[in-house]
Amino acid sequence: MKPTGPLPPEFAGQRGMLTIAGQRADDLLAAYGSPLFVYDAAIMAARVARFRAAMPPALDLHFAVKANPYPPVVAAMAALVDGLDVASAGELDKALSAKPAAAISFAGPGKRDHELDAAIRAGATLNVESEGEARRALAIAERHGVTPRLAVRVNPDLELRGSGMKMGGRASPFGVDAERVPALVRAIVAGGGDWRGFHIFAGSQALDAGALIETQAATLALAARLAEEAGMAPPLVNLGGGFGIPHFAGDRPLDIELIGDALATALDRRAAVLSDSRFAIELGRWLVGEAGVYLTRVVDRKQSRGDTFLVTDGGLHHQLAASGNFGTVVRRNYPIAAATRMGEPGTEEVSVVGCLCTPLDRLGDHVLLPEVEEGGIIAVFIAGAYGLTASPSAFLGHSAPNELLLHTH
Amino acid sequence: MKPTGPLPPEFAGQRGMLTIAGQRADDLLAAYGSPLFVYDAAIMAARVARFRAAMPPALDLHFAVKANPYPPVVAAMAALVDGLDVASAGELDKALSAKPAAAISFAGPGKRDHELDAAIRAGATLNVESEGEARRALAIAERHGVTPRLAVRVNPDLELRGSGMKMGGRASPFGVDAERVPALVRAIVAGGGDWRGFHIFAGSQALDAGALIETQAATLALAARLAEEAGMAPPLVNLGGGFGIPHFAGDRPLDIELIGDALATALDRRAAVLSDSRFAIELGRWLVGEAGVYLTRVVDRKQSRGDTFLVTDGGLHHQLAASGNFGTVVRRNYPIAAATRMGEPGTEEVSVVGCLCTPLDRLGDHVLLPEVEEGGIIAVFIAGAYGLTASPSAFLGHSAPNELLLHTH
Repeated sequence: MKPTGPLPPEFAGQRGMLTIAGQRADDLLAAYGSPLFVYDAAIMAARVARFRAAMPPALDLHFAVKANPYPPVVAAMAALVDGLDVASAGELDKALSAKPAAAISFAGPGKRDHELDAAIRAGATLNVESEGEARRALAIAERHGVTPRLAVRVNPDLELRGSGMKMGGRASPFGVDAERVPALVRAIVAGGGDWRGFHIFAGSQALDAGALIETQAATLALAARLAEEAGMAPPLVNLGGGFGIPHFAGDRPLDIELIGDALATALDRRAAVLSDSRFAIELGRWLVGEAGVYLTRVVDRKQSRGDTFLVTDGGLHHQLAASGNFGTVVRRNYPIAAATRMGEPGTEEVSVVGCLCTPLDRLGDHVLLPEVEEGGIIAVFIAGAYGLTASPSAFLGHSAPNELLLHTH
Repeated sequence: MKPTGPLPPEFAGQRGMLTIAGQRADDLLAAYGSPLFVYDAAIMAARVARFRAAMPPALDLHFAVKANPYPPVVAAMAALVDGLDVASAGELDKALSAKPAAAISFAGPGKRDHELDAAIRAGATLNVESEGEARRALAIAERHGVTPRLAVRVNPDLELRGSGMKMGGRASPFGVDAERVPALVRAIVAGGGDWRGFHIFAGSQALDAGALIETQAATLALAARLAEEAGMAPPLVNLGGGFGIPHFAGDRPLDIELIGDALATALDRRAAVLSDSRFAIELGRWLVGEAGVYLTRVVDRKQSRGDTFLVTDGGLHHQLAASGNFGTVVRRNYPIAAATRMGEPGTEEVSVVGCLCTPLDRLGDHVLLPEVEEGGIIAVFIAGAYGLTASPSAFLGHSAPNELLLHTH
């Protein structure tokens, strides 16, 4: 038997049929087909409220659209947060339908001219990733006769300890090495750009509050040093995100109240050059990850050499990360449950597999569940972020699942 | 510097601008946009011809559609092979537009009733994966008043040594444990099914001819034993595939002539119960993998802490396997080249990254290439199998790349 990750708190106490935003899993599948992604707007709103309560009042909250670009989710989040961060022209289009351009920033390496063009014409902020990209952006803006809003993404000389994905402190395709940033800021202003500040992202999916506190303090110090060297105060400092959520057995939730207290202190004591700056935290997974559940029906229940397999109509083509094939070296089980028998003790060890003809397609490996018959429903949790769009949905030619955002009535 | 995999033979000797089926890479990108998947029909045909020359004449060749379901590729392969193997109702539809139903078989766990229904009504062969699936198929066929064509997928009690993905010899979601197969065959026939034989797949992506020869001999012996126990001769024995192609430095091409000689001998000596059976090999990657090239343009060339990055407009959303994030534990470089400067010695160490805002998005890690400027073209090889459809193409909202099948004129 292998352990599974902890269920998000809104689902951990449920008994009997799983409900999402008050609706029964079986009714949802009957109405919308299987497999199905269901997102609960109230859980997203609760995460935003918790963030607001924990963090200093002046701090802005941005939603990273890439975590879940389902248009109703983007619209719901846009109503709750101060800004949307996008990573492509496609995401920019979605964001522009939900939020004014002034509240949208666009980061990501390899922005093509047509993407720079779209952001500049819309009036969104471009987080430039290199000197070359800044030059291209200024040239495009000049052709349009407009002033581009340009922030500088910084490749910091610091690293987020305990980060699931390290994105700073080393040679990186992201951002401009900190030591070259002041010169770039001056070049942007000299070139006619409206310099919007810094974007400093040191890592993601961290569960260690101490590491995040340390990184945020170092990020503030770095922003102050770069501003002083540039001789200009940044209108906004995007401090990055990196707030993780528990995925696997043994993971503990992040103590964001501790982070908020430390950040309040750090902001109170910030250097004079940052006194008029705004600050933002950019989150994706932490805001929406736990709000999503992937429901899939058991098509076949079979025995092989002493093992029991529940073969579902879902799989890694929808939930690649849960299969352990995206960004993880060792496969571990996501939180998974028998949706029809929540709260019942596990009575048999089964492997839950998908319908793809590859041994990689495993949603739960030797997990302990109550008995689930053919036609039963399996729920894989933490499906609200990096789920469907981060999976090879065309693999093996299965039809796309529905997605659904539920508001509690 | 880290090594790259060997270029497929058709491209290894090229000098100057890369050509695919005689067309220049720069012309192709100008006409069809970047990034672009280009498949060369002549390379696919050459692989089929080599297979036919190496293998015993009576052996059938099937194409596994999942390797590349691009409709023009399916059509081109359908004209060259004896059968198409599919893994979903979606692939079945594509196959039916290219080949008669009698030449199509459908394998895969978790087939839903509507998929069984579609295959039965079309007259395709279902490779049943469990006793339960066989019962459902027989019941559906009875409702339609037709005789279903049912083969039994066997979970063999043998394993392909050196296989990239082991699919036999252990508890498995695929097929029916060998020891239960004879009873299932009798039940299918008693239930009114047209029993089509066995499907025995022991692994994939093997480069060791000796291991494949051993596995094929064991597969033949297993088929004979199961047929004898069932008391019926199988019309067809699908021996599986498993032929690998070189991806990484040090990989050597498979000696299929050696395999063909051994298989001819093994077939000559086969048990009497198999004397009237046909035999098939099912291949995907080996037939089409080397025929595809992924072309992507360099958008930005940047320095960071001593490293040089070529940031392209492609990435893991199109070529997940090349980024090392699908089915591999240790990331190694696929064959990759400067498409504009084929055959030139490498002069600088660069990392080729995609345009996604994640550190996972790396197409070439510290590879030695001739200098490539912004606007230059990078070619990632072995893009003909498990490329676009095996990648999270919606990730980060970039537009889909074009695909193109070229016939040499």
